[in-house]
Amino acid sequence: MRVELNPTHDPSRRSWVGSANAAGADFPIQNLPFGLFRTKQQPVGSPPRGGVALGDQIIDLAGIVGELNGAAADAARAAIGPSLAPLMARPPAAVSHLRAALSDLYREGADAPRAAARAALLPSSAVELVLPARPPSFADFCSSIDHIRRMAAGTGRPVAACANHLPVSYNGRASSVAITGTPVVRPRGQFEARPGGGEVRYGPEPRLDYELELGVWLRGGNRLGQTLSVAEAEAMMFGCSLVNDWSARGIQAFEMMLGPHLGKSFLTTVSPWIVTMEALAPFRVAARGREQGEPAVPDHLHDADDRAHGAIRIELTARLSTAAGHSQRIARSGFEDMFWTFAQMVAHQASSGAPLEAGDLLGSGTVSGPADDARACLAELTERGGNPIVFDDGSRRVWLEDGDSVAIRGRAHAPNAVPIGFGECVGRILAAVST
Amino acid sequence: MRVELNPTHDPSRRSWVGSANAAGADFPIQNLPFGLFRTKQQPVGSPPRGGVALGDQIIDLAGIVGELNGAAADAARAAIGPSLAPLMARPPAAVSHLRAALSDLYREGADAPRAAARAALLPSSAVELVLPARPPSFADFCSSIDHIRRMAAGTGRPVAACANHLPVSYNGRASSVAITGTPVVRPRGQFEARPGGGEVRYGPEPRLDYELELGVWLRGGNRLGQTLSVAEAEAMMFGCSLVNDWSARGIQAFEMMLGPHLGKSFLTTVSPWIVTMEALAPFRVAARGREQGEPAVPDHLHDADDRAHGAIRIELTARLSTAAGHSQRIARSGFEDMFWTFAQMVAHQASSGAPLEAGDLLGSGTVSGPADDARACLAELTERGGNPIVFDDGSRRVWLEDGDSVAIRGRAHAPNAVPIGFGECVGRILAAVST
Repeated sequence: MRVELNPTHDPSRRSWVGSANAAGADFPIQNLPFGLFRTKQQPVGSPPRGGVALGDQIIDLAGIVGELNGAAADAARAAIGPSLAPLMARPPAAVSHLRAALSDLYREGADAPRAAARAALLPSSAVELVLPARPPSFADFCSSIDHIRRMAAGTGRPVAACANHLPVSYNGRASSVAITGTPVVRPRGQFEARPGGGEVRYGPEPRLDYELELGVWLRGGNRLGQTLSVAEAEAMMFGCSLVNDWSARGIQAFEMMLGPHLGKSFLTTVSPWIVTMEALAPFRVAARGREQGEPAVPDHLHDADDRAHGAIRIELTARLSTAAGHSQRIARSGFEDMFWTFAQMVAHQASSGAPLEAGDLLGSGTVSGPADDARACLAELTERGGNPIVFDDGSRRVWLEDGDSVAIRGRAHAPNAVPIGFGECVGRILAAVST
Repeated sequence: MRVELNPTHDPSRRSWVGSANAAGADFPIQNLPFGLFRTKQQPVGSPPRGGVALGDQIIDLAGIVGELNGAAADAARAAIGPSLAPLMARPPAAVSHLRAALSDLYREGADAPRAAARAALLPSSAVELVLPARPPSFADFCSSIDHIRRMAAGTGRPVAACANHLPVSYNGRASSVAITGTPVVRPRGQFEARPGGGEVRYGPEPRLDYELELGVWLRGGNRLGQTLSVAEAEAMMFGCSLVNDWSARGIQAFEMMLGPHLGKSFLTTVSPWIVTMEALAPFRVAARGREQGEPAVPDHLHDADDRAHGAIRIELTARLSTAAGHSQRIARSGFEDMFWTFAQMVAHQASSGAPLEAGDLLGSGTVSGPADDARACLAELTERGGNPIVFDDGSRRVWLEDGDSVAIRGRAHAPNAVPIGFGECVGRILAAVST
């Protein structure tokens, strides 16, 4: 992997869309992430179309395509909807041309036809954002060694040997990957009334949790029976979104003979914008090394060049807000602390020969870190419910209650780069449906 | 669930396609299963189209649709290809009308226009069969308590408590579901050189196994956050195929912190024909009850009516053939011995609220039974490699070797019914690809 910077990364570039230049903006002109939207005038269920976030505006790609040509126009047409998977499958150079053209059209001092560019803008408040693609498959990894160690510590069992040798993963349900804001209906299922007590009940999950993650969307992958090197895997990555892998800990703990299943399948929330790997280039840093006593990365997952730039420096936070109106940050961690890189996860996922496909989504697993506040799920933070969070108003939480909402945010940052964000990945807990 | 018989089930009905009447035929006129095919004259990669197996012939639905009308014609048009998912999503009555119309056109003594019916026939030998649908999702269950007990016995650990309370499952990879005959490339991965020995290697899987299963294809399912009763789940079942869930036992044993993943993802082979639930109606029998010491079926998975007809009486066999030409049956079991019914598996899969969709495929898990020869994978049969199979020619197997092939067959049978089959589900092991 080479990290290549180009004029779209220029930190001195500003946009004539003023909100894009605000300090703390998620979507400065250096970001230009892709999403799908419907205007509020469009009939419900009508096909969504592709857009690019810029400050508090959305560039309607169908509205700007006439100002583009060549590969950039071709890429914009691939984002016509109702899925961004065709855009993801375009050659990276075409997507890069599109982003460069948009950067030129919307930058301060641009001499492009501003009337057409302005006409293609819609205020974010006027649109409904839609899931960028129904992933053909969703797999969720468990790539934070800090998360794994804390979760194992709670059980009294040692860390599984495999966690030191490979990026542990399970296949999830692509059908329940949903966009930010989708209600989180508390699932029903079977669990032990008291963990380990042996009394099995069926009912609404009592130990509802969240997991702060980052996800990567793929451009394509491997053919059946073939594999990907780490470098090839890196080249298959289109971009990233925030992910909340909601977890029903009671159901999960009881059912886990063959891994998590219903306890992790009821909903996976993603943020609406896909921040391209190109936009993330300025934030690439060396991957976490191996410490004394940790096995070396196996050869087939080792790539010295990827190792040098394999990680991405992103600060991730989670905030819990209660129905009573209290709100508190409950986690802050860094994606650069992960034990495995996304490229290693993609290469591992391909390594058995099962095809990866355009639009596939891989979750990183809970992004925890060594710090005490870098415990990025409630099971870690409350030590499996034994140690409540106490809010400023005196209320307590061990697990999520009906009416609570969890909002995840992310911010890639680096010296000499304009920080970029992802938008919000939020979900509010609704009571279990009656049966 | 009601088991309704109609004239298509009439055991006295014979076809004017002589091969359909042969003793032992998989596809008598009572079966009429759906599949996808390309003629050998069609260009490679051209869209496949829908067909129905009858003896050694295939009814080309595009060729017969002009002889049909109403719901039957509508169902035939939904099978135009390149996927049978639209056919699966049609109302069951439409599919039933189509099967009834075909049964009338092809039965002995039919006064329908035989010229058109004859013109729509293609010899099976002239076509290439194609996967009926790319399932939006594939999940694999573990619903034989005999399989679970034998597999646990090998580890010295007790059977997981959940296995008595719910149909254990994991989500698999839909992208590596492939049709019979697809080469089984031995996967590479990480495993312990000696199980439990701690020395981790990366290389071709040394403990390659098969699992004899039945799969059910779904007509549709539930919406996000909603569930299905067992009766609703039964009504969502379109039909069944044979499934071989190839398993890399070394990779699987090492990686299973969060369940099977790469050890089960490299290939899942299915037989080419989907035998409809309607065709299977004469073979429905009472589901296996619960014995002394086994917990009752939980209320949300209990349905007395389904219980009375929940199982399907199907004899399943697996045959191993070596490159040297020796061939031996290695398993024979009955699908009626499963601990959970397909309807219970579907209801369980929907019970967290994750959507099931038209074309989804659920595997039953290894169909083992109490008898010694009803051990339907090599891990059970050879006691995890400790007790080799000895062939008639003196050669031995503990795991599958390059050049071996495994063929699964199934036969639904009942008194006063014409038995029906599924075709073959076969795969031959190829050496791992070089890296």
